[in-house]
Amino acid sequence: MTPGSNHPRNGPEWRIRLFQVLFEADTHGPAKAFDIVLIATILASVVVVMLDSVESIVTRHGFLLHFLEWVFTILFTVEYAARMVSVASKRRYALSFFGLVDLLSIIPTYLSLFLPGSQMLAIVRVLRVLRVFRVLKLVRYMGEARILARAMAASRYRIVVFLITVMTLVVILGSFMYLIEGPEAGFTSIPVAVYWAVVTLTTVGFGDITPATPVGQALASLIMLMGYGMIAVPTGIVSVELAYAAQAAGAPEGTPGTADNVCSACRTGGHDNDARFCKKCGGTVIAIMPE
Amino acid sequence: MTPGSNHPRNGPEWRIRLFQVLFEADTHGPAKAFDIVLIATILASVVVVMLDSVESIVTRHGFLLHFLEWVFTILFTVEYAARMVSVASKRRYALSFFGLVDLLSIIPTYLSLFLPGSQMLAIVRVLRVLRVFRVLKLVRYMGEARILARAMAASRYRIVVFLITVMTLVVILGSFMYLIEGPEAGFTSIPVAVYWAVVTLTTVGFGDITPATPVGQALASLIMLMGYGMIAVPTGIVSVELAYAAQAAGAPEGTPGTADNVCSACRTGGHDNDARFCKKCGGTVIAIMPE
Amino acid sequence: MTPGSNHPRNGPEWRIRLFQVLFEADTHGPAKAFDIVLIATILASVVVVMLDSVESIVTRHGFLLHFLEWVFTILFTVEYAARMVSVASKRRYALSFFGLVDLLSIIPTYLSLFLPGSQMLAIVRVLRVLRVFRVLKLVRYMGEARILARAMAASRYRIVVFLITVMTLVVILGSFMYLIEGPEAGFTSIPVAVYWAVVTLTTVGFGDITPATPVGQALASLIMLMGYGMIAVPTGIVSVELAYAAQAAGAPEGTPGTADNVCSACRTGGHDNDARFCKKCGGTVIAIMPE
Amino acid sequence: MTPGSNHPRNGPEWRIRLFQVLFEADTHGPAKAFDIVLIATILASVVVVMLDSVESIVTRHGFLLHFLEWVFTILFTVEYAARMVSVASKRRYALSFFGLVDLLSIIPTYLSLFLPGSQMLAIVRVLRVLRVFRVLKLVRYMGEARILARAMAASRYRIVVFLITVMTLVVILGSFMYLIEGPEAGFTSIPVAVYWAVVTLTTVGFGDITPATPVGQALASLIMLMGYGMIAVPTGIVSVELAYAAQAAGAPEGTPGTADNVCSACRTGGHDNDARFCKKCGGTVIAIMPE
Repeated sequence: MTPGSNHPRNGPEWRIRLFQVLFEADTHGPAKAFDIVLIATILASVVVVMLDSVESIVTRHGFLLHFLEWVFTILFTVEYAARMVSVASKRRYALSFFGLVDLLSIIPTYLSLFLPGSQMLAIVRVLRVLRVFRVLKLVRYMGEARILARAMAASRYRIVVFLITVMTLVVILGSFMYLIEGPEAGFTSIPVAVYWAVVTLTTVGFGDITPATPVGQALASLIMLMGYGMIAVPTGIVSVELAYAAQAAGAPEGTPGTADNVCSACRTGGHDNDARFCKKCGGTVIAIMPE
Repeated sequence: MTPGSNHPRNGPEWRIRLFQVLFEADTHGPAKAFDIVLIATILASVVVVMLDSVESIVTRHGFLLHFLEWVFTILFTVEYAARMVSVASKRRYALSFFGLVDLLSIIPTYLSLFLPGSQMLAIVRVLRVLRVFRVLKLVRYMGEARILARAMAASRYRIVVFLITVMTLVVILGSFMYLIEGPEAGFTSIPVAVYWAVVTLTTVGFGDITPATPVGQALASLIMLMGYGMIAVPTGIVSVELAYAAQAAGAPEGTPGTADNVCSACRTGGHDNDARFCKKCGGTVIAIMPE
Repeated sequence: MTPGSNHPRNGPEWRIRLFQVLFEADTHGPAKAFDIVLIATILASVVVVMLDSVESIVTRHGFLLHFLEWVFTILFTVEYAARMVSVASKRRYALSFFGLVDLLSIIPTYLSLFLPGSQMLAIVRVLRVLRVFRVLKLVRYMGEARILARAMAASRYRIVVFLITVMTLVVILGSFMYLIEGPEAGFTSIPVAVYWAVVTLTTVGFGDITPATPVGQALASLIMLMGYGMIAVPTGIVSVELAYAAQAAGAPEGTPGTADNVCSACRTGGHDNDARFCKKCGGTVIAIMPE
Repeated sequence: MTPGSNHPRNGPEWRIRLFQVLFEADTHGPAKAFDIVLIATILASVVVVMLDSVESIVTRHGFLLHFLEWVFTILFTVEYAARMVSVASKRRYALSFFGLVDLLSIIPTYLSLFLPGSQMLAIVRVLRVLRVFRVLKLVRYMGEARILARAMAASRYRIVVFLITVMTLVVILGSFMYLIEGPEAGFTSIPVAVYWAVVTLTTVGFGDITPATPVGQALASLIMLMGYGMIAVPTGIVSVELAYAAQAAGAPEGTPGTADNVCSACRTGGHDNDARFCKKCGGTVIAIMPE
């Protein structure tokens, strides 16, 4: 995802400067200013697409919205072209996550010339807002996002096991509800009943379909209690993994003055609190307060 | 559940081969191919049963669905027979979890010849999909499922205590709502009011029955706040047990090396994975796999 | 709550035997049999009270239900008298939690002779089912209930802080919704709007009252996101306390083969895994596997 | 927030006494009595504002409510003036959190003389109830609130990352639901569809808008499962931070003795509370209070 190594190393001066403004974030000068303007523009263009779907607003300000939509699209097209020009490997950028999102952000407006209505698809440009993490990198959001992502990645196997179990449950319980309640109560088919089971197990509970018979209400109660209790499983999984991920990333936030245990010979840090000898070189371990 | 020891040790060559294909999963050859085809077939047959309940589809493609349903049922019948032939103890397989599910997966279709409508019960064959864990065993899902199952098993006493408390609460609170609100607001009887209390306490909130009087709304608010807070209990229980289960199972996910790092001099264990010298005595650390 | 020290030490033989059957649980003979029969009777009587509120059943089986209700009430009255006779201090039993519940379980039926309809209050006898924990004491539910209770007790200050914050939030947010939405959308008064805010913040979402204006929907979205995120607070509190309570109660459940670190001199157990000398007597610590 | 250093050090005797009664809480005399009366008055005035919005009550007791409202407002005005007089820096108090809340608590009633209906805004005076934490300081709520606040503060970066991700998701998923379902099912515009996505993802599920097409129900099921699973993220974040915050604040609740147990010979810390001899060297263990 990070296009850092897509740097046009041997390119002319202006191309390197363009790349820095468009892709890098840790400077204080024009790159940061560009990022802030970009995020603001993306948010404004998303608002325009959203308002474009509200009938009462389109009736009164339709022309303005369409005009703004085209202004944003042309701006984003120019930006896309500039990114294409500045990168070392065009193919790599075009197929990267943000490269695809950048392209998908401009296509729908052009498409709407032939296919009226397709301009709504431009809403995917909200994904470009995720670039905000890059702007905020200077602070520490990036590290936090990485800890969250690592915890998610580490628990993916357990979450897949959990999801397969939930899916199986939902199909069986939904089907039984269909057999018990039948079309009169809104359970018109097994797929609809499975949809209802998802609504119920996840504790969403729309209420568009509800059991009417005592047996159906009893089974529904059981499903609700299961859903209420089972939410503990993903929560437990993520809690445990986050604890490990935070540990691996060093001291937690907000814990003031946790001394590091450092080897007095080789300066290796991160020893256990009860360590007396260095695990790398066998030297003596001492506690040092971080600056 | 694992039919591993149901291996027909002294049987003829073809029976051992058949058993390996049908029951074992850690080979790369025909057993794996069979498992993948099986899971796909099960999923397809579940979709057929689900679509068979959608009136608009049955009207148009009823014959095709019935034809496919019989094809799948005959395939599963042949598979069941093959499993029966290959195992060492027929009785043990027939009474095992998957043995029963395999049988229940084919009975409803045959039953539908005499009892129209009963073919819907074939939906239980979705349980056969749980075999997917066996197919995925090669990766690490099996170990994860075991950690989850162990955490669940370890917290079963606490969860029973929690459920009995919730049940008692729901009966009392539901009855009071029945006395306060009465049949006009939809609380037509105590069982219905208890069903409503489950809907509310688990934060599902269908909205098919809602309190109308100020006193009823006040008590309902209390029930909701209890439900909102009490969800912490199963979550806390599972988190703690998962942390222990993960610990007992060795290093957390993503940390390679579940072997214990033991000092070759003083036998102190529990060193970090990157430790080369003992933190207690300075001796050399070696990795030892647990039995 | 435990009436153990209410034992009639110097009473006649039959009184001691009566006390043992009625109040003690760890024997295998008549006391256990009595407990099981008692729980079954309580559950049956609760079902009778519940069915007594279902009109269709009362129309057909009204006489049977009333007859059974009186049978159970007389049985429970006899049991209450027997408990009164057997205990050392009548006053202490009468004012204990279970003493009050036992009394409240029989009063409504007698009261219904003068106040028709009050027999519904007999539903409080479902609280007597909590005695089931005593019956199950032989296993380990009692210890688990104690760990849960201790974690709850330890987090009571934090939960009070959390509840006061939630209450304040709900009053302010509900009032703003009343000002924004007004009576047309169902927000007929501030108390009703506060009730709606509780329904929304706790993620119950009945849907009997819903915002209709864009500003109302925006504020409602904010309340929902707050409720979705804030559920983390009680969960976090209970998780942390449960981890401490479980730790304080000894090794967790389901951790197989955790060796105890015992002093070879004074046999004191429970030393840390890295302990080499006994914290009590200074003797050498060795690891011993539990039987 | 704590106006402790706003003490009128060199003021006359009566001003210091006034300040102590109005702002300090850890005495047993008039300051505590004042605080309790204040909290009771605030709660009563909040109830009056709430009842003032219930039509049936205003019709019957309108005059009494208005009279009480003016009594409370004049009391709070006097209190505000007294606070102004007693503090060392008027500007600092006026701009503090409680200074602003105190002012906003009295303005709406005066405003209602010119702008009928604006007296409802007086509901913000419920925020003054948060002063209850100051009254309860004597016990230990203050410390608990600080632990909660610290855990919240420590996890703010992760929660921002989480919220931005949720917002992005909700905009994209809502827009797709708008394209799939359209105005017939209640998805009248993208903003409404985004509101629906928030209702669904947070598992609130009002049911005022529900998908009607199979594709919409499938996507809705996916959103619900995501919401059901994603609630694990804030919960995990807060659990981990609470564990650290509790650790940093000393021993958990209910564990007496926050002093560290250190060996007098080798200075090893972290011994158990019942340790008399050092687990490393066998020396005597002594308790040392942390600075």
